[in-house]
Amino acid sequence: MEKIEHIGIAVKNLNESNMLFAKLFGTPHYKMEEVSSEGVRTSFFKSGPNKIELLEATNPDSPIAKFLERKGEGIHHIAFAVKDIVSEIARLKEEGFKVLNETPKKGADNKLVAFLHPKGTNGVLVELCQDASSNAAL
Amino acid sequence: MEKIEHIGIAVKNLNESNMLFAKLFGTPHYKMEEVSSEGVRTSFFKSGPNKIELLEATNPDSPIAKFLERKGEGIHHIAFAVKDIVSEIARLKEEGFKVLNETPKKGADNKLVAFLHPKGTNGVLVELCQDASSNAAL
Repeated sequence: MEKIEHIGIAVKNLNESNMLFAKLFGTPHYKMEEVSSEGVRTSFFKSGPNKIELLEATNPDSPIAKFLERKGEGIHHIAFAVKDIVSEIARLKEEGFKVLNETPKKGADNKLVAFLHPKGTNGVLVELCQDASSNAAL
Repeated sequence: MEKIEHIGIAVKNLNESNMLFAKLFGTPHYKMEEVSSEGVRTSFFKSGPNKIELLEATNPDSPIAKFLERKGEGIHHIAFAVKDIVSEIARLKEEGFKVLNETPKKGADNKLVAFLHPKGTNGVLVELCQDASSNAAL
């Protein structure tokens, strides 16, 4: 795993949180994106080589809406950048991790992503992500 | 803020989690450290320019023991690297954030650290950290 690609933070109101995190980082978000398939609206901030992704639910059945209901606002996942998500999924399965997406899916920010079940990683929802542009086969 | 310096993850059993995260990253932790003043034993993994810090409580009144009781294992905080923690604390107070350590304190990994109250940051416990060696005045 190359680096922390981003940290995902679940928020109730993306516009308000955009203002809050702009104050925290001293610089505004650089893009917003809606991922309809996940029922989520996102915004991105940079922190050097890393990103912070704020996540707001766009429908009440989305994973983020359920997370907010259960746990409230806060850190939702850590995403690690990987060069080859398919081989990384195979390696982690071999190591005994429960991979929630055996075939990587399209995430925000032009990424191919797969999640590991947090029960197998000390309660941490881990995302693997690879630039979608770097694997033409998928 | 320069980058995500590290993510802190609260775990119940550091030795077991060290083995688990070694499988996750494909490489073992590179150091362990006890911070008696915080009632915590830590281990560190590298992920490119970032670190993962696992935190195990060494006494039942420590912040990590209380976090584990309340929320179970999982992500405890995000730490951002800053060049000048004193001026960053001043800037964030000016912006309305509640800084829990107005005078930075000594953390693990030879850092000067200060935390922001998570109620003011969408439930995220944010740590600022600066290499202690880079500010001889403190």
